Amino acid sequence: MISFKDAYKKVLDLYQDFGHEQVSLETAMGRILAEDIVADRNFPPFNRATKDGIAINYDAIEKGLTTFKIEGVLAAGMPPQPLMDASNCVEIMTGAVVPDNADTVVMYEHLVIENGSATLTKSPSRGQDIHICGSDQQKGDLVLKKYSTITASEIGVLAAVGMASIKVRSLPKVAIVSTGNELVEVEEIPLPHQIRKSNIHTLYAALSEASIVPTKLHLPDEKASIKKALDNTLKEHNAVLLSGGVSKGKFDFLPQVLEELGVEKIFHGVFQRPGKPFWFGIQRETNTVVFSFPGNPVSTFANYNVYFKDWLRRSLGIQIPKIDVILEEAVAVKGDLTMLLRVKIRFKQGHLAASLVKENGSGDLCSLVHTDGFIILEPKIDAYEVGELVPFVPTRDLL
Amino acid sequence: MISFKDAYKKVLDLYQDFGHEQVSLETAMGRILAEDIVADRNFPPFNRATKDGIAINYDAIEKGLTTFKIEGVLAAGMPPQPLMDASNCVEIMTGAVVPDNADTVVMYEHLVIENGSATLTKSPSRGQDIHICGSDQQKGDLVLKKYSTITASEIGVLAAVGMASIKVRSLPKVAIVSTGNELVEVEEIPLPHQIRKSNIHTLYAALSEASIVPTKLHLPDEKASIKKALDNTLKEHNAVLLSGGVSKGKFDFLPQVLEELGVEKIFHGVFQRPGKPFWFGIQRETNTVVFSFPGNPVSTFANYNVYFKDWLRRSLGIQIPKIDVILEEAVAVKGDLTMLLRVKIRFKQGHLAASLVKENGSGDLCSLVHTDGFIILEPKIDAYEVGELVPFVPTRDLL
Repeated sequence: MISFKDAYKKVLDLYQDFGHEQVSLETAMGRILAEDIVADRNFPPFNRATKDGIAINYDAIEKGLTTFKIEGVLAAGMPPQPLMDASNCVEIMTGAVVPDNADTVVMYEHLVIENGSATLTKSPSRGQDIHICGSDQQKGDLVLKKYSTITASEIGVLAAVGMASIKVRSLPKVAIVSTGNELVEVEEIPLPHQIRKSNIHTLYAALSEASIVPTKLHLPDEKASIKKALDNTLKEHNAVLLSGGVSKGKFDFLPQVLEELGVEKIFHGVFQRPGKPFWFGIQRETNTVVFSFPGNPVSTFANYNVYFKDWLRRSLGIQIPKIDVILEEAVAVKGDLTMLLRVKIRFKQGHLAASLVKENGSGDLCSLVHTDGFIILEPKIDAYEVGELVPFVPTRDLL
Repeated sequence: MISFKDAYKKVLDLYQDFGHEQVSLETAMGRILAEDIVADRNFPPFNRATKDGIAINYDAIEKGLTTFKIEGVLAAGMPPQPLMDASNCVEIMTGAVVPDNADTVVMYEHLVIENGSATLTKSPSRGQDIHICGSDQQKGDLVLKKYSTITASEIGVLAAVGMASIKVRSLPKVAIVSTGNELVEVEEIPLPHQIRKSNIHTLYAALSEASIVPTKLHLPDEKASIKKALDNTLKEHNAVLLSGGVSKGKFDFLPQVLEELGVEKIFHGVFQRPGKPFWFGIQRETNTVVFSFPGNPVSTFANYNVYFKDWLRRSLGIQIPKIDVILEEAVAVKGDLTMLLRVKIRFKQGHLAASLVKENGSGDLCSLVHTDGFIILEPKIDAYEVGELVPFVPTRDLL
């Protein structure tokens, strides 16, 4: 048995590097960049009109001109073209290249157009309504850093700089394994002493948020079959997530089988609730890590969110968010266990306010639908007070 | 031209109902429930041992017994079995059914087992370490409400109650359409006056977060082709998102073409920045709504996040989150435009603190990678002050 803090540190210390791979722009959403991205040209790449109207040379205004002969029309997508006479103008559309010898755009709202000429109805200022070449980014500037998470915003930038194929951090191959003879399939009507599998479906869904499609496996409480199946699973995956079979029961073969298969036990048992019997280890030969979670649904879910997600972040090279929330009620944590408590979050005047979810222990699966995440409270003599800041691990998207 | 508030209201007033469909549990992640879900049995379905140890009848302790003959072993998944003699015990494993005539579980840590008998080393209390049948949920209880968003937590509950197939809200068929002759494909090396498409890729990625795979289309700035292509697109989709072609340029055919195709203009132009030329309408015949966003990347992205996402939420029947953030700097908003300003969010002692992103106008695509969302500021005489609460629309997952 080790402390929560030690367990957390030991898990993160065994982070892995899964390398990198190329993916298409269309499938890059949610992935982690494995390279710095620089601008392949200036942004914008030319002096770009930002209004529809005319382009002129401001010198002509300084010479007293207010009416300009229209030489033609420049649309977005047309090749650059200078003013033939710098006292004239050209009609120009948003996104078009401003002529080299023009420096000012005047929008239609400030013009009268008659007989092939445009007359100003309002004085412009030199340089207005032009998005200057290179003013956002210069060619060669860093536009996206390695280890950025690719969201819709990053997709737009990747497209703009021509990255149809992108180098991203590879994801681990993950197996999720349920154990327990009491478990039946979702489609089945359980006998009175049976229950349907749920942890494996929860883990499958949670992993999909990290773009991971895991292998699913179920093991009966029978030592020889467990050993055989796990032997293969350990060889073929980077991480194996088990639920159930790690407490002190007569049919909790997992710790023994894992050690027989050469999986080094890093710890078995954490001073925490839920999830005290959590077993964690590594098969050095294959570098496969094993998260063996207690079978209660809330234990598995809490440990996945608290340990596995940060292990994955560390392995992918992304920052681990540190979020504090404000307690809406006092909470006493006595004894020697770190408590992972279910909370609901309210956005209240720019604050994240946490209140405890009514629940019935670590078997109470249904309480999780009212839960936005876990607060992590170390035991201490005095109760945690209303208004106190405490660390928070979200279990659903809140923003 | 209408106000931001009016535009927002008019968009939401045209929400649609796309009906519902059945999906498998494996593909239900992120979808919206279209039915209430009730418990098909009690949770837990039997008196369930929560520790590994022995099950006894507490009456025997009251009669003075401290050593109990072991009748056998009950594992999880074994059919129920009573104590043959209520003065005896049975070894019981976590998850197993507690015998009808037992009422207390004592864990191995509080026992000495010798010669087929278990002796207590610590006094138990009646009823301990049993998860009582129906104590979480009773058969028939509502466990998930219609219109809940399905996350990993909900998946576990759906599995537990046997929902292998789930009725969810159908998603709209969406087309995303880019316009502009200056645009080339991501794979291409643009000529000096060309730029690569980016908005359509950003929208594609953003829609994927809502589980929507849109149809992609590009239209040249040529009226007849636009009309033909849009005619079909309107027939085949519930929502059409266009970017570009709605300002006052000579080749901005969209407003005219849309009206020729019988799309009723709800508004064209909003007192907002970015995204002033935003055009919104509906083809009553097909009930297809048209979001025609200005082509600047930040305009399209802001309008998508501010208008389309809430239109989609309203259409799917889910609550629209109202989130305020705290300004970290003073901001002056004069004139008549509502400002959608790019901000970075810091989690600071349980607060959401917003600071403005350095940017170079609505064409500055790269600024979006530093942006966590938009704050929406109405114009007012006095500046918004440090510490003031302002409404916030996130553009990436922050929690």
